[in-house]
Amino acid sequence: MSLKKKINASILIIGNEILSGRTQDLNVKYLSEWLNNNCGITIEKVVIIPDIKKTIIKNIKELSKTYHYVFTTGGIGPTHDDITAESIAAAFKKKYEFNKQAFSILKKYYGNSGFNNARQKMAKMPKGSKLIYNPSSGAPGFMIKNVLCLPGVPSILQAMLPSTKTFLSKGSKVHTKSFHLVTVESNIARDLDLIQKKFRMHVDIGSYPFFRLGKIGVSVVLRGKNKNKISECSKLIQKMINLKKIEVFLI
Amino acid sequence: MSLKKKINASILIIGNEILSGRTQDLNVKYLSEWLNNNCGITIEKVVIIPDIKKTIIKNIKELSKTYHYVFTTGGIGPTHDDITAESIAAAFKKKYEFNKQAFSILKKYYGNSGFNNARQKMAKMPKGSKLIYNPSSGAPGFMIKNVLCLPGVPSILQAMLPSTKTFLSKGSKVHTKSFHLVTVESNIARDLDLIQKKFRMHVDIGSYPFFRLGKIGVSVVLRGKNKNKISECSKLIQKMINLKKIEVFLI
Repeated sequence: MSLKKKINASILIIGNEILSGRTQDLNVKYLSEWLNNNCGITIEKVVIIPDIKKTIIKNIKELSKTYHYVFTTGGIGPTHDDITAESIAAAFKKKYEFNKQAFSILKKYYGNSGFNNARQKMAKMPKGSKLIYNPSSGAPGFMIKNVLCLPGVPSILQAMLPSTKTFLSKGSKVHTKSFHLVTVESNIARDLDLIQKKFRMHVDIGSYPFFRLGKIGVSVVLRGKNKNKISECSKLIQKMINLKKIEVFLI
Repeated sequence: MSLKKKINASILIIGNEILSGRTQDLNVKYLSEWLNNNCGITIEKVVIIPDIKKTIIKNIKELSKTYHYVFTTGGIGPTHDDITAESIAAAFKKKYEFNKQAFSILKKYYGNSGFNNARQKMAKMPKGSKLIYNPSSGAPGFMIKNVLCLPGVPSILQAMLPSTKTFLSKGSKVHTKSFHLVTVESNIARDLDLIQKKFRMHVDIGSYPFFRLGKIGVSVVLRGKNKNKISECSKLIQKMINLKKIEVFLI
């Protein structure tokens, strides 16, 4: 068992376009897997809210009190609906002002003539922010207190994540083991319940029905920070599969 | 302008598999568009939480107080990790018990011999629930107070949505109009800001950068309940496009 402590985080998605269904969010899945695999950080809550200043302030205050880290996505571009930075400044009672380093990065990126007022806005952030380097499109993200602000465009967010690593404490990774079974949930529910009770301290067992290639199936997923316990638990699942003569999907 | 009132809702996604990134959520987009198009109901918040009873109870209490409706997805199957129904019963201090009508639907669906204990669990719900008919896989969802409980599997959720219509008050629909422009946000930020200020009471203007077919672009999206205002606002956007000689994507 790793001696590293448990580190959790939440994601705050700021964007009318996600709430309205216009845009499919892809950042929760990527961020969650990346943070677990690279930093041992577990996402425990996600909240999606509209571009409304007082709503952003309220949620930032609540989440930053409750979780080790808060990752925000969206609302840090140059247009009128990009209000994440000023809202977070207000939440933490920090001045919302030009960050010299960000200003200089953006000036270099756009050139003197291209660095107009709208683009200059992207250099404004809460006083005392640390910059998150953006190798994809110039404009940096920032970290203030335990809140890390990232853009909403998935390709840019993904390119920036490695730059957040130096700011994050490492926790212990969640390991997983999956079984994809040609069966129905009600056929294995009783056994899964007994196995879950036996491992309740160390392993979370999830059961997820699926349809694939015309077959009905169930994915049984074991998750936990202790590799040995996952392995012990897997043996009991395998024993159940053998006893019940359940076919296993090879995927 | 429609005289129908504004009706809002929130979505509570219950599932470790979404939080961990194992499964990509597809229900927010579908539910949000369906509710707007079919019922004039606007999603104003989404929360994703793990399968933990006290967390479900806390979020149900908060959301059901704040929004006209709460839609939950996930956690209503036959296995040990399906705890949505018992948690919602606890949140509303209702008995968690067999619903006779659900019991009879499921018994008919599975037949006497196939209706085992695990499947019987799917007939248990908070006392006083109304059933949401499931044409896809038998097990009904339910509505208690202003909370509607749906499954997590997208195809089943989608098949069940029409059955929720009779339970929902209708609001006024949000209309949208989009322009996909070959430009960058900073080129139009100032004009958009001025147009947004002019229409601040009736239209929300969103600006979303994208990359498509090797070109960088911006989608400008107008949203609002008043069709005439959307149309007036569109004319100003079109005027800006003409003045700035911006190329428009034909998609």
